[in-house]
Amino acid sequence: QHYYQLFDADRTQLGAIYIDASCLTWEGQQFQGKAAIVEKLTSLPFQKIQHSITAQDHQPTPDSCILSMVVGQLKADDDQVLGFHQTFLLKNFQGAWVCTNEVFRLALHNV
Amino acid sequence: QHYYQLFDADRTQLGAIYIDASCLTWEGQQFQGKAAIVEKLTSLPFQKIQHSITAQDHQPTPDSCILSMVVGQLKADDDQVLGFHQTFLLKNFQGAWVCTNEVFRLALHNV
Repeated sequence: QHYYQLFDADRTQLGAIYIDASCLTWEGQQFQGKAAIVEKLTSLPFQKIQHSITAQDHQPTPDSCILSMVVGQLKADDDQVLGFHQTFLLKNFQGAWVCTNEVFRLALHNV
Repeated sequence: QHYYQLFDADRTQLGAIYIDASCLTWEGQQFQGKAAIVEKLTSLPFQKIQHSITAQDHQPTPDSCILSMVVGQLKADDDQVLGFHQTFLLKNFQGAWVCTNEVFRLALHNV
């Protein structure tokens, strides 16, 4: 929820949740490290965006991480509403939860 | 690919990829441990099923696991084709890759 609130309000603030070891795969394109990930997220070609979550599942992992899978819908600018799926692996790093791994796909190709 | 081949051919053989610490969330229902997971997967109410993968993304994690997100379509018995999304966390455990975490959702609710 926090992620999507930041994403929809001000993507530049998302840097706080990534570390230099973080990996993002966005529609098949790979980015590694806080700087590359924030650059990708802030350069996405829309002015405003709104996410709504349809379903979310969370699990603890054997390495004390949290695995989350989110299914939802998003509306970018005046485009039509699109489904998306996104997976996060969260890890406690120096006292804060950070996102070490993230995968995003639009549902577009799966209808 | 191996998972879906086993799943489509003989779900009872899937036990080999889970350990007692494995977690499965299937359409929001949680199962823990090899026995509970295999019981769930083998009791799903269809005789035959066929998966096809639309997109798959894989990432290494800081704890030497592999995070995979799969988007695809499945056809169970004579039902209509449905989209699905599935996330796996794979870990090397005593020399073999096992699935410690798995989340499955039909795309059904996201159209």
